Amino acid sequence: MQAVSWDGKAVQVTDRPEPEPGPHEAVVAVALAGICNTDLEIARGYMGFRGILGHELVGVVEHGPEAWLGRRVVSEINFACGACDACEKGLGRHCSARRVMGILEADGAFAERVAVPVANLHAVPEGVRDEDAVFTEPLAAAFEILEQLDLDASAWREKRALVLGDGKLGLLVAQVLAHAGARVHAVGHYPDKLDVLARRDIETSLQSDWRPSEKFDISVEATGSVSGFEAAVAATRPRGTIVLKSTVAGRHELDLAPLVIDEITLLGSRCGPFAPALTALATGQIDVASLVDDRMPLARGDEALRRAARKGARKVLLECGASG
Amino acid sequence: MQAVSWDGKAVQVTDRPEPEPGPHEAVVAVALAGICNTDLEIARGYMGFRGILGHELVGVVEHGPEAWLGRRVVSEINFACGACDACEKGLGRHCSARRVMGILEADGAFAERVAVPVANLHAVPEGVRDEDAVFTEPLAAAFEILEQLDLDASAWREKRALVLGDGKLGLLVAQVLAHAGARVHAVGHYPDKLDVLARRDIETSLQSDWRPSEKFDISVEATGSVSGFEAAVAATRPRGTIVLKSTVAGRHELDLAPLVIDEITLLGSRCGPFAPALTALATGQIDVASLVDDRMPLARGDEALRRAARKGARKVLLECGASG
Repeated sequence: MQAVSWDGKAVQVTDRPEPEPGPHEAVVAVALAGICNTDLEIARGYMGFRGILGHELVGVVEHGPEAWLGRRVVSEINFACGACDACEKGLGRHCSARRVMGILEADGAFAERVAVPVANLHAVPEGVRDEDAVFTEPLAAAFEILEQLDLDASAWREKRALVLGDGKLGLLVAQVLAHAGARVHAVGHYPDKLDVLARRDIETSLQSDWRPSEKFDISVEATGSVSGFEAAVAATRPRGTIVLKSTVAGRHELDLAPLVIDEITLLGSRCGPFAPALTALATGQIDVASLVDDRMPLARGDEALRRAARKGARKVLLECGASG
Repeated sequence: MQAVSWDGKAVQVTDRPEPEPGPHEAVVAVALAGICNTDLEIARGYMGFRGILGHELVGVVEHGPEAWLGRRVVSEINFACGACDACEKGLGRHCSARRVMGILEADGAFAERVAVPVANLHAVPEGVRDEDAVFTEPLAAAFEILEQLDLDASAWREKRALVLGDGKLGLLVAQVLAHAGARVHAVGHYPDKLDVLARRDIETSLQSDWRPSEKFDISVEATGSVSGFEAAVAATRPRGTIVLKSTVAGRHELDLAPLVIDEITLLGSRCGPFAPALTALATGQIDVASLVDDRMPLARGDEALRRAARKGARKVLLECGASG
């Protein structure tokens, strides 16, 4: 089958063997796959991954338990062992022996087909288009913040939230926090991206114009830069929370003393729950359509990754052959 | 009156004017004052403070409202404005206009007398000796962790906690967490200090021998070093909490990516509530007597600070003249 691989040197569209599903695994024929910044990081050496890239997909179950055959699905990306301490606590996303689709010891979704644990499948509700469902994984990562902070609706309505970064994840996070009830201010670099939020009545500022006049209860760092981290620290009120949504990979010069003095909580946040993300897509609460930059066939996967790596690019989707 | 001052160049015992209490302030005749690492940091330029040092004290109210006159007291160190947003929310310790005793725009307690807001006074229960009561402020900082984590007794009993650092604060934190019900492992450099904890049935390891074989729910960084921070990150389970109890002052090379990947919460923690600290001292739940290294008269304050700065030193107390 055709697939987009990373061999440690180059991203290439190559012919690869069909996936061989293990026990309790299904094979999904991929309709659409989304290119994430993590894919681009991997293609710069992050995680030392080798294999088929990609972890955002929507497709149709081709092999697996009968109940799933032919169903349109999305898939969680952490393949848990099911037996360790974390798994027993229901924290499979933190399984210490996990493989991660397209990231760690498991082939990914930039392919005609991908094998995933049946336990990771979620049926896509009718009425959710493929081009929206393919956002389930990154949208779940945004919903993770709600799961971690665990506030009720009235508490959210009292929160003033800052989202730093108008990348794909930042745009989703801002919408999710606004949907939860918070009053959100989003700061970014691109007027056209910030407009996506403004159309949803979210306050926005261009980074170059932004002069914060208040402190925020919750700040989300989604720029992946040291300056974003520092801006979040400066803009968060004492006893407030900074959500670290992007990995500022590697070592950086940072000053944590303000976190102690202002007793700020820094909350690392990664993958999230699929169910609320699918519900939000089904009810049209989150605009993902405006985040799509381009769609390209799998055969042009290398070009698609280059396109996704352009400064200011939004989501680039790969058409992988299956029809949902 | 006699006082120990920092003028930006040297620590000196000098003759200083008597404190002039502002409205709503009392004057406390100081019996004992404790030397904290923060005092030593200030005498290296931290905070740019100039004036009388010291913020840990026990003494007797000499001027102030009649109800307080002659009473033995300790004093909170953050002098709040009482009118700002933080103060209105009951977060006077985070008042943006605060002065801080011996740290920020307010003379401190290494003196015969010190002026403090009446609102900051706490009566010392009978039966608590001066040499124990003088630990109220650092002990309150340890109790702050309990206030911030806000777990009930049964939740604490399920927690496995790590305390990194056997400095004065580390020894208090380890005892407070054990008192809350957690199973605590403390790691430090000094066998004699760790023995204080071992006598309270707290597990201990010398840093040089420590090979962590498990991950902890809660890790407290009380070493003030980058290596302590890194050890805390490595030893904390996914979705666990690291409490930053010491300011690693200045900028350091740090990697925050593990916090995101393991969704760890980093909790900055500073000053704490006096009431539970005084109760713990009154009921003998925390051993502070073993933390005292030496007592010296105020007149030898410069020498006392040098003594407190020796590697491995415990608490050095200054005898400031009043008798409690």
